[in-house]
Amino acid sequence: MIESMEMEEKLEQFEEETESIIELLDKKSYFKAKEELLQHNEVDIAEILEEVLEELGIEKTIIIFRMLPKDVSVEVFSYLPSDDQLAIIDGITDRETSFLIKELDFDDMIDVLEELPANIVDKILEKTPKDERKLINTYLNYPDNCAGSLMTPDYIGLRIDMTCADALAHIKKVGMDTETVYTCYVKSASRTLEGIVSLRALILADADTPITELMNDSDYVYVNVKDDQEDVAEMFKKYGFLAIPVVDNEHKLVGIITVDDIMDIIEEEATEDIERMAGVMDDSDTEYLDLSVFRHVKARLPWLLFMTVTLMLTGFILAQFEMVLSQVIVLVSYLPLLMGTGGNVGTQAASLVIRGMSVGDIDLKDFIRVFWKEFRISIVIGGILSAFNFAKIMIIDGESAGIAATVAVSLICIVMFGKLLGSMLPMGAKRLGIDPALMATPMIQSISDMVSSTLYMLIAAMILGIAL
Amino acid sequence: MIESMEMEEKLEQFEEETESIIELLDKKSYFKAKEELLQHNEVDIAEILEEVLEELGIEKTIIIFRMLPKDVSVEVFSYLPSDDQLAIIDGITDRETSFLIKELDFDDMIDVLEELPANIVDKILEKTPKDERKLINTYLNYPDNCAGSLMTPDYIGLRIDMTCADALAHIKKVGMDTETVYTCYVKSASRTLEGIVSLRALILADADTPITELMNDSDYVYVNVKDDQEDVAEMFKKYGFLAIPVVDNEHKLVGIITVDDIMDIIEEEATEDIERMAGVMDDSDTEYLDLSVFRHVKARLPWLLFMTVTLMLTGFILAQFEMVLSQVIVLVSYLPLLMGTGGNVGTQAASLVIRGMSVGDIDLKDFIRVFWKEFRISIVIGGILSAFNFAKIMIIDGESAGIAATVAVSLICIVMFGKLLGSMLPMGAKRLGIDPALMATPMIQSISDMVSSTLYMLIAAMILGIAL
Repeated sequence: MIESMEMEEKLEQFEEETESIIELLDKKSYFKAKEELLQHNEVDIAEILEEVLEELGIEKTIIIFRMLPKDVSVEVFSYLPSDDQLAIIDGITDRETSFLIKELDFDDMIDVLEELPANIVDKILEKTPKDERKLINTYLNYPDNCAGSLMTPDYIGLRIDMTCADALAHIKKVGMDTETVYTCYVKSASRTLEGIVSLRALILADADTPITELMNDSDYVYVNVKDDQEDVAEMFKKYGFLAIPVVDNEHKLVGIITVDDIMDIIEEEATEDIERMAGVMDDSDTEYLDLSVFRHVKARLPWLLFMTVTLMLTGFILAQFEMVLSQVIVLVSYLPLLMGTGGNVGTQAASLVIRGMSVGDIDLKDFIRVFWKEFRISIVIGGILSAFNFAKIMIIDGESAGIAATVAVSLICIVMFGKLLGSMLPMGAKRLGIDPALMATPMIQSISDMVSSTLYMLIAAMILGIAL
Repeated sequence: MIESMEMEEKLEQFEEETESIIELLDKKSYFKAKEELLQHNEVDIAEILEEVLEELGIEKTIIIFRMLPKDVSVEVFSYLPSDDQLAIIDGITDRETSFLIKELDFDDMIDVLEELPANIVDKILEKTPKDERKLINTYLNYPDNCAGSLMTPDYIGLRIDMTCADALAHIKKVGMDTETVYTCYVKSASRTLEGIVSLRALILADADTPITELMNDSDYVYVNVKDDQEDVAEMFKKYGFLAIPVVDNEHKLVGIITVDDIMDIIEEEATEDIERMAGVMDDSDTEYLDLSVFRHVKARLPWLLFMTVTLMLTGFILAQFEMVLSQVIVLVSYLPLLMGTGGNVGTQAASLVIRGMSVGDIDLKDFIRVFWKEFRISIVIGGILSAFNFAKIMIIDGESAGIAATVAVSLICIVMFGKLLGSMLPMGAKRLGIDPALMATPMIQSISDMVSSTLYMLIAAMILGIAL
């Protein structure tokens, strides 16, 4: 990633300012540090506090956090990573915690509560009015990864009998506390979602226009509270919305999801794909550095053990061909080439197909088209690699035409098998309801290794006339 | 990805409706088809037209496209993939093209113009007023991947001496044609950006408040027109904005970037990472199925040839140890295990570190922390795999303790080397200004293969007492 000069300068300046604040805190010049800190916006203050926590520890972080104006501290808190939030809650009084939690936006509050130990949550809920407590409990109970876990109740709901003027007056009254005012949701008396209307439309229309004339009540888009977060992200990408309403099975409006929470999902889903494709099994959203050694091992070991077993099988297959190998020991030196190439062509095809399915470019019904494309690609690539290696083995290595032919024929077979395996296995997995990303590197490499070595030995025996 | 029932039903219903429209068009029931088509919103109509184009060809697609109401057709056009847009432009008259292009949102228009052949662009520009032509030319000249290529001039600019009421009146007047009304940009007479103010603030304030009182003029965020699009995406993710203003070197406002264009960037960047990590070298945004066999080969062959060369080197290394291998032929059967494991542990570490750097979880200054983490992980994983294989080779394979020890010791060395290589190589690449993703699978596997086979042979010679 090459950054333009201006961006780089800005980053450097920010780092210098962060350093200077940390130094001030280290020297206990708290008021000076606070003054410098408040030059920044809340997102940047949160980032600086992260650094402070890392460099100077929790005590000084809490001292400076407490010195921030109340409204700033709440917003800064909402931008901190959840580990740091917990560290701060651990260090402040219960009373301060309650205040902090209550002042947060509803969806940020739910995020924090989800991470807190149950006894602290109970203590906070005790002091919450009954209505809100019920709502919080409902939200806490939505399973992770579903639309319900992303939504917030902080939206503007309009009654269906309002005029434009009524609506704008209502927005002026409640607007400050909502997550977005830019789309308003029109509900019947029974809370059924009747349509949506944009703030833009309300402002541009005459005051006495009934909102029923402005609202979209037919082809607006909504999601069900139980929909998968990936599907919700797809809808945001497809339609380019700022917010989507969430309804229950009776089409009652239960909340909205805003685009800022969706960007995280898009990124998380891509990370999940990448990790699964590399054979890493941790689905938590914990950052690399925050994950313990034990959990890193737990995430990586299963596939490695699986690979060990399949690689043993490959070794076992090779051992069956000891006759071939001991008669023509030079064949061993081409084994890495054949196995490596098989795995790589497979991984290339698999990555393209898995990603294509993730972003919606490839559909299960494109099966034949993908097969046909990979078939042609594998002939071209297999042909080029075969010819290249045949020439190299004859000319540079000075081996016999038989050896060169063995490697060349094996190579084209292995490339074709690898490409078709790499493309078809993820599609087959998806067909069976298994995440295609799980079919990437380790699985494809394992199968490809076994098949490559068997093919190689059989072709060698055939071409070189060795009895098995 | 397991979809909830409701989402799945919706998708099925949509597919059925698409099928029915295609059938109607196939039977030339155009009016019936149009009627069914107009039941959907513009995004969905675009998706259906994509299917029509694929199944029935361009003629019928153009017939039905022309039958759409003018305003619908423009919006539908903007949602089509650029290949399909070109196909349609090819099939309609120049006059229709000019109309279509002129009615598009400015940033969509630039996207289309960028894809069109120069002679058609010239023809369109001829008919454009001079001012707009100049603006279009400026926009067309921003290099791909920079902030300038993402922005639109369709924003609401307010003069610094306006009151709230002035501002709202201005928004009412020009609002309909702008990309977003939700943030307004306050400019001096010389077009310098002075601050930003949200529509929300304007609505919630009293009518005669000067906007200078409402606007944020100190810590608002902006980007330079030359900033990299990845950095811009980072800022959107960090701050959760709907739009960011873009300024030139003199801090003059030249356009804004909106969040809907950023979601595509986040996804493209992840796709690029995944493809590079798998050793695929195509950086165009062309979809898998639309990329020709030739270009697929061009994207995949370079790394495969690179691998061929390094795998030859590995073979060459093995050939140097022919003495060892021919004396203890059973060592060959453990070669796949050792090489495979080395590559896999490397890929796992590399994927985590590369992704961690992409999303900003890992920074170059975390070098020591990453090293220390991978070091500990590799000891644990290496130890477990070694012990497991030692026992298996002794007990199940019935080989000597010497052979088992050779494999076990090699394995722990290879795992440690693989993990450290996989984590350090991408960080080193980034330090040198090379994209870390290029250091993934093929590169790591190549180095790891060579080192693994050398280590294995040396350790075998040492433990088994074979003279080299």
